[in-house]
Amino acid sequence: MIVYTTAHGYYLYCPSYTGYDIFYVVEAKIEFITSGSVTSPRGFQAGATYAGIKRKADDVLDLGILFSEVPCAATALFTTNRIKAAPVISSQRCLQSGRASAVVVNSGCANACTGEPGLADAAQMAELAAENIGVSPEDVLVASTGVIGQRLPMELIRTGIKRVVISMDGGRKLARAMMTTDTVPKEAAVAGRVGDTRFIIGGVAKGSGMIHPNLATLLCFLTTDAAVDIDFLRLALRKAAGVSFNMISIDGDTSPNDMMLIMANGLAGNKPISPRSRQADAFQQALDQLCIYLAKCVVRDGEGATKLIEVTVSGAPSVAKARLAARAVVSSPLVKAAIHGGDPNWGRIMSAVGQSGVEIVESKIDLHIGSICVVKAGCPLSFDNQELVNLLRSSQVPINLQLNLGTATATAWGCDLSEEYVTINSQYMT
Amino acid sequence: MIVYTTAHGYYLYCPSYTGYDIFYVVEAKIEFITSGSVTSPRGFQAGATYAGIKRKADDVLDLGILFSEVPCAATALFTTNRIKAAPVISSQRCLQSGRASAVVVNSGCANACTGEPGLADAAQMAELAAENIGVSPEDVLVASTGVIGQRLPMELIRTGIKRVVISMDGGRKLARAMMTTDTVPKEAAVAGRVGDTRFIIGGVAKGSGMIHPNLATLLCFLTTDAAVDIDFLRLALRKAAGVSFNMISIDGDTSPNDMMLIMANGLAGNKPISPRSRQADAFQQALDQLCIYLAKCVVRDGEGATKLIEVTVSGAPSVAKARLAARAVVSSPLVKAAIHGGDPNWGRIMSAVGQSGVEIVESKIDLHIGSICVVKAGCPLSFDNQELVNLLRSSQVPINLQLNLGTATATAWGCDLSEEYVTINSQYMT
Repeated sequence: MIVYTTAHGYYLYCPSYTGYDIFYVVEAKIEFITSGSVTSPRGFQAGATYAGIKRKADDVLDLGILFSEVPCAATALFTTNRIKAAPVISSQRCLQSGRASAVVVNSGCANACTGEPGLADAAQMAELAAENIGVSPEDVLVASTGVIGQRLPMELIRTGIKRVVISMDGGRKLARAMMTTDTVPKEAAVAGRVGDTRFIIGGVAKGSGMIHPNLATLLCFLTTDAAVDIDFLRLALRKAAGVSFNMISIDGDTSPNDMMLIMANGLAGNKPISPRSRQADAFQQALDQLCIYLAKCVVRDGEGATKLIEVTVSGAPSVAKARLAARAVVSSPLVKAAIHGGDPNWGRIMSAVGQSGVEIVESKIDLHIGSICVVKAGCPLSFDNQELVNLLRSSQVPINLQLNLGTATATAWGCDLSEEYVTINSQYMT
Repeated sequence: MIVYTTAHGYYLYCPSYTGYDIFYVVEAKIEFITSGSVTSPRGFQAGATYAGIKRKADDVLDLGILFSEVPCAATALFTTNRIKAAPVISSQRCLQSGRASAVVVNSGCANACTGEPGLADAAQMAELAAENIGVSPEDVLVASTGVIGQRLPMELIRTGIKRVVISMDGGRKLARAMMTTDTVPKEAAVAGRVGDTRFIIGGVAKGSGMIHPNLATLLCFLTTDAAVDIDFLRLALRKAAGVSFNMISIDGDTSPNDMMLIMANGLAGNKPISPRSRQADAFQQALDQLCIYLAKCVVRDGEGATKLIEVTVSGAPSVAKARLAARAVVSSPLVKAAIHGGDPNWGRIMSAVGQSGVEIVESKIDLHIGSICVVKAGCPLSFDNQELVNLLRSSQVPINLQLNLGTATATAWGCDLSEEYVTINSQYMT
């Protein structure tokens, strides 16, 4: 990430496979760190190697370790899929203590649908990593991403893990070792203040995004040097997920391996942050902004994606309903296909919100695409068609739906559907 | 449809854009009629014309009428989308009486999101059709399919409708007038007996099928010369939808225009069929088989589809849960992409059922693809990989999931995902 500071705030340039896009503007109070990573907070180290799990390609890494010099308060959110990968079961058990020191992660094999032998492999992977970094295996979490139904190549992991050298600037290597069909690593760090103490939160994510991710495996590891009460940490992570990773379109495909983890090692030296304190607000805001940035990186790197779609639903009866409606629009393949083709088929947006499960009143809805009002009180307006087409062709498409039923608002992000496959749908009207 | 009769039953050849595929075998007790259509039952007539609503192409029709010589008991199921097209609202009102004589249908414009003027257009379309065929406008239903958010070109409809000439062999013309991105018309008829009386049920459907149908608009009109009690007719239609159109993958995109209608004119002369009678069973079976056939025609004609996927879930705690699980598998873009590429990535099937919302026990699941047992009691088995690849490459792929949690069973149908777009996902493992 590149950060460009102005008097009004920060412009963040996100890596994409075509280069860098500005795609995020934040207020000045949140300080994004240039070239920030998961090792930006004090006391965190990381490293990675190529163990041979993924197919060989230039510069490929597939096995990594993230480590804190001191034990951390730690909590995670896991997949809601009822098929749970072995590393998920292993890490869930481990986190019952509310503590962890390290994570070992591999790409290329999900270690899912592998039964008891898979659980033994995950346990062994934790032991091998623990040995390498000199901690207890109970303090090591495990994460995997890749093909389902195949056993981990334990021999390769056994020899590979010895080659993992951790360091204070190893965050980028870890980010690369987690990638599957991702085209760019996704990492960032933000700084904030609690009282006189400056703290940093770092983060790394992987996700093949887009409409058909390779099982949508989403891994996100967050690190912070702030001292945080474990109860508040659990609350804060759930809140942050609610406005970020739970608001991006991953097309309904929830992988058996999803995991979003936060580790707080307290090296910043502040008094532990507890719920409902002023410190809690500062921490939550920084965490939310970091997670939103990383979540947007994931959708922006969707397979074949060429643009970012941002849907804000306002005037909803509740935040839950606003989120449901916004997610329905960014998840609709027909909306995505139309936007890819610059096809002004706005009826698909109305239809998507209509099938979201949220009770709406058609005659109350206002729909804006960018600054163009397309529907007012449920009735189509006349507008400059070419202006709308131009807007849909830009690299970011903002959509605003006003339901006029309440005061709640939510934003969701998605990407377009590209490729020959969508030709029929994206040219339906033009 | 071509019907080939053997001692064991019927082989039905379904039209597809590549020619004809066998894809359905029924027992001898259900009699499918060769070249059957919506006008096969006594007393039904239909006709269509090109009014100019769709873009001109060779041999295009876009406006049609279906008519019964005597008034019918009639009922329909409508879209669950909260954005409802004007023709849906108009037809819902009309059917409160439980009676109808005709349907007027157009393609090329959905007349949805058109506010009060759209409702007036739908009403006028019914009046124009009523005038043409000499019935009361209250007895004429309206259906539309096409682009959302545009007004109907009423001038074209006014002049076009006068050119619609109905006849007893007009079923095929009606089927063509309903098509949007469909590549083949979908129609069939079955015969059955109640006591000494032979009755016929005819049907026509349109649906652009596949993963991204053009708003999944599904229209299905069913006609029968059987005399049927209106209460039983409502029940029978709902049951038939439950095993047919509600069990095909239309990718979560429910259009504002969906409509599944049945009209019974009683010209067969039987005593009206009432619920829970032996006659009710005979009628239900014939109706179910007809609807399953038409539903499979819809998915088989999915945009770019090259094969039919049939997923049966058994051992479920309830039929509702079996249906939910089976639908989740045929709706998964990742499963569809893998099957398109002949990629033996069976883990995606497990993952899809895991995220279906149905409570499963991973260690109890058996998974068969064709005759190959891939997973037994939750553990992967070794199998001949090439044999599985060959199976996935055939034009019909049967998948069986045994949950071992109960006795309920359901079957769902879907099609593969083709085109460049899925290249990444379909080559993930091979």
